[in-house]
Amino acid sequence: MELKEIQKKIDTLLSLKSGQLYQSDFLLSWDKREDEIRAVLTVAEILQMMREQNISPRIFDSGLAVAIFRDKSTRTRFSFLSAANLLGLAAQDLDETKTQIAHGETVRETANMISFLTEIIGIRDDMYLGYGNTYMKEVSEAVREGHREGALPRIPTLVNLQCDIDHPTQSLSDLLHLSRHFGSLEALKGKKIAMTWAYSPSYGKPLSVPQGVIALMSRFGMKVSLAYPEGYSLIPEVEDLAEKNSQASGGAFHKTHSMAEAFADADIVYPKSWAPYDLMQRRTELLKAGDSRHLDELETECLELNKRYIDWVCNEELMERTKDALYLHCLPADISGVSCEHGEVAGSVFERFRLATYRQAGNKPYIIAAMMFLSKVKKPTEVLSDLLQGKPARAS
Amino acid sequence: MELKEIQKKIDTLLSLKSGQLYQSDFLLSWDKREDEIRAVLTVAEILQMMREQNISPRIFDSGLAVAIFRDKSTRTRFSFLSAANLLGLAAQDLDETKTQIAHGETVRETANMISFLTEIIGIRDDMYLGYGNTYMKEVSEAVREGHREGALPRIPTLVNLQCDIDHPTQSLSDLLHLSRHFGSLEALKGKKIAMTWAYSPSYGKPLSVPQGVIALMSRFGMKVSLAYPEGYSLIPEVEDLAEKNSQASGGAFHKTHSMAEAFADADIVYPKSWAPYDLMQRRTELLKAGDSRHLDELETECLELNKRYIDWVCNEELMERTKDALYLHCLPADISGVSCEHGEVAGSVFERFRLATYRQAGNKPYIIAAMMFLSKVKKPTEVLSDLLQGKPARAS
Amino acid sequence: MELKEIQKKIDTLLSLKSGQLYQSDFLLSWDKREDEIRAVLTVAEILQMMREQNISPRIFDSGLAVAIFRDKSTRTRFSFLSAANLLGLAAQDLDETKTQIAHGETVRETANMISFLTEIIGIRDDMYLGYGNTYMKEVSEAVREGHREGALPRIPTLVNLQCDIDHPTQSLSDLLHLSRHFGSLEALKGKKIAMTWAYSPSYGKPLSVPQGVIALMSRFGMKVSLAYPEGYSLIPEVEDLAEKNSQASGGAFHKTHSMAEAFADADIVYPKSWAPYDLMQRRTELLKAGDSRHLDELETECLELNKRYIDWVCNEELMERTKDALYLHCLPADISGVSCEHGEVAGSVFERFRLATYRQAGNKPYIIAAMMFLSKVKKPTEVLSDLLQGKPARAS
Repeated sequence: MELKEIQKKIDTLLSLKSGQLYQSDFLLSWDKREDEIRAVLTVAEILQMMREQNISPRIFDSGLAVAIFRDKSTRTRFSFLSAANLLGLAAQDLDETKTQIAHGETVRETANMISFLTEIIGIRDDMYLGYGNTYMKEVSEAVREGHREGALPRIPTLVNLQCDIDHPTQSLSDLLHLSRHFGSLEALKGKKIAMTWAYSPSYGKPLSVPQGVIALMSRFGMKVSLAYPEGYSLIPEVEDLAEKNSQASGGAFHKTHSMAEAFADADIVYPKSWAPYDLMQRRTELLKAGDSRHLDELETECLELNKRYIDWVCNEELMERTKDALYLHCLPADISGVSCEHGEVAGSVFERFRLATYRQAGNKPYIIAAMMFLSKVKKPTEVLSDLLQGKPARAS
Repeated sequence: MELKEIQKKIDTLLSLKSGQLYQSDFLLSWDKREDEIRAVLTVAEILQMMREQNISPRIFDSGLAVAIFRDKSTRTRFSFLSAANLLGLAAQDLDETKTQIAHGETVRETANMISFLTEIIGIRDDMYLGYGNTYMKEVSEAVREGHREGALPRIPTLVNLQCDIDHPTQSLSDLLHLSRHFGSLEALKGKKIAMTWAYSPSYGKPLSVPQGVIALMSRFGMKVSLAYPEGYSLIPEVEDLAEKNSQASGGAFHKTHSMAEAFADADIVYPKSWAPYDLMQRRTELLKAGDSRHLDELETECLELNKRYIDWVCNEELMERTKDALYLHCLPADISGVSCEHGEVAGSVFERFRLATYRQAGNKPYIIAAMMFLSKVKKPTEVLSDLLQGKPARAS
Repeated sequence: MELKEIQKKIDTLLSLKSGQLYQSDFLLSWDKREDEIRAVLTVAEILQMMREQNISPRIFDSGLAVAIFRDKSTRTRFSFLSAANLLGLAAQDLDETKTQIAHGETVRETANMISFLTEIIGIRDDMYLGYGNTYMKEVSEAVREGHREGALPRIPTLVNLQCDIDHPTQSLSDLLHLSRHFGSLEALKGKKIAMTWAYSPSYGKPLSVPQGVIALMSRFGMKVSLAYPEGYSLIPEVEDLAEKNSQASGGAFHKTHSMAEAFADADIVYPKSWAPYDLMQRRTELLKAGDSRHLDELETECLELNKRYIDWVCNEELMERTKDALYLHCLPADISGVSCEHGEVAGSVFERFRLATYRQAGNKPYIIAAMMFLSKVKKPTEVLSDLLQGKPARAS
């Protein structure tokens, strides 16, 4: 019965054009076609169902999945290593304090030195605007050169675990969560999602989550309402992309400086803090220059600015304006009265959705495993069918 | 021949009521029935014999065993990860410096975030009286809620790798060592074990080892003699428990302030330093308050107090009072003239038992693996028989 | 077709007397007979070819490979853990900051405590002259005692990942690289290799790479030219060994204080910085004494001394003196104008050989895996044949 469900998903996968994911990196969701996005979601669901049925999807007998985290992380780190482990790879941190990754030359060399038996490289590099995505492309080019020139027997493929522009493993996990909640991807058409800034007592949160969300949800016919206080805009190119996507998908994209307006009649709300774009740009320059005095000043300035919008909080009053909306968060949330005095969300609201946010987060290991799987398996439907029948199967 | 021995142990296991260990945590040895303790020892022996015969007991194709160490550790850390590895799980440290585990809310959330593919969580948290065991229960409740509410596909079970109250992986390793040395658990009836305090130049050692030992050995009909200088008592409830256990098992429990009295005619001696209970309580308060000045004062006070009992050392003279006793230690021991000037044990005594203490320590990976195994396998005798016959077998 | 190539290599292995590698440590290349060196190279090639054919050489179902790194490392660390992973072992760092390894007693104990399920111990300890190799032997003796006395079910074997005297995983990787480049080991006879000091703005680089190279290459009939400025000699015993080896193998060993002389008509050049032997000896004493003031003075002195030889750089002019030589480096190189202002090698020279140095480095995981394999498998040719035919095979 459940196995039939899995087989049905495999049939769905068969109908999707996802062949270009093979041996490709997954860096930006908007570089992938809709079929490819759907294929990742479908494989994630298949792997999740297999896990529930205690069917092993192990396709590697050996091999490494190297994680490079340039920012602290628990959730994404464990998601990445769980995904690697599920497929049979050993996850390995590259601790940059024990090595030296600096300028171009060394990136190129280190990328090869860690890749002799590496199948996957996962990178989080979200601190500096204009750098994270660039660094990932540099690593990717380096290992492809190494493969071409005979230094690496296989091509390690990259998974973006959050850069300065996008956070695709998050946004696809969110999309899968929505697809489940509303019944299907098709059911999302016309649904209103409020991606809104919210107050946080902390500073310097990356822009990649809201950017990833508006860029992806706008492709599935949703009405995306983006709300933030003046001065907290996202990277202009990504806002433009969301606008274009909406037009193409028959959805809508709307910007506002009012949280209440965004919440009005929303089916989904995603209130989350981020740093102002131009402050992040100044911060990047100061970090590069190692100018700690001005960095301190900038932090003070930014926290002062934040405080002006301390009323941007997802509370019961705002929730009542919605259509019984589903609350989303990438976690950890700043919860008023729980993890801080004033935060992004009221304690009572968060508690109502707490377990739902765990389930939302629980998609991530499978989304990452699906990205790995599709980049490493030439004939995914055949391999999944073999696994379903308990036959041994291996990455190609 | 050896395989027959293993089969005999499997038959023993079949006769023990250990079904309640399935999907249970192992937090305190006294929460487990005698049959369950015996089952853990038996499975540990089976796994050890299989290892010697190069028979793999791998029952997982993937899955994580997460270790949370809130105190430094080599022995227990390696024991835990060896046990995980033996069964096919990938051990993964949760480095709390890379995350934030603080108050209740975050414990609950983090516990779930690290558990999406986690089978086992091992925790060492032995520094603060009244906290370690509480924290473990909090983690356990959190992941069980996550499982109930659909966030976790499987229930991660907990193994206590040392808390403020008990150190069950140590005490069961010790019990297995004694059972081997004297021939059987039954042969331990009437044997005298001296669990005694001993001088150490260090400060703040947890109480959980002596507590675990007196609480467990008193259940197997041993004569437990607990000796410590005035002011070095253990948690009163645990001393009471040992007293009650002794009465029930036909053994004896005796407290004294004389090391010589405890050693007299002892079959087993376990001389080991620990911090005075009330000092540990004051220390916990000061640590919570972050009061480093008074912590320093407390350390000085405690070391001064220790020095008054510098003659509490397991030397040849004391050993002569015993019935050719077996010396036990959880390692590392403070060895006079070797690792410090004056320590818990004389160099010549320790050297005579050095390899024996290694064998004692060598039980731990198998004890932990047995706890994991019994909490994850519904029909342990069937699965072990399959493994013995070289058939593939998996956790349920 | 490719499988036939692998079979041919297995046949070669069959002709080599390598049985003594079984259950042996690999500490110094000169303690191994030529057949044993050849066996390691051959198995490395077989494993590499298998990897290219996606044939798994997994021979362990569980077990640890423990890495003890007493010096920073990316390349060797990843090579070691990749090798472990390839054979089915879980690599585990022993972080000495989380433990205490100090004097003899503790080494002995810790070595056993980390080894209950350990198959391989890899150690890098190259900082102190006279200590690294000694430490490795101490660990080896300790685990062999533990095995003899029943504490360890299996003997963990050691792999020297760089000590104060030798760096055998590097020199054997280099030898395999040369053997491939020139067609065979036999083709190396009469080839001139210039192992030369080169300027670096850093300080205290170990002597083990040049020592390992001259001691190994001199055994294969090469003309070894060792060049360094006055005062930069290597350990005298190793220079003498290279001299003796050369005589026995029909090669030559020549020392000079001129880089140009060494490069003249060279077939291979290996320009690489190292610290002067007597400075390293003084440094070891000061480190032991914890004398940081004199250590600072020594560093200044050494860097000043280095600067006198800033013209010892592998540039185009020198390369023109060679017979179109192959450039070798163990990486990372100090590249003039790239990673530093003045370094060991000119940017244009390095860039021409950059990918070749990656391939050179890419041998290391396989060399280490081969050392592991031959120390753990009693009948290597049988096991390799089984693996080639897709039959399951296990370490003995």
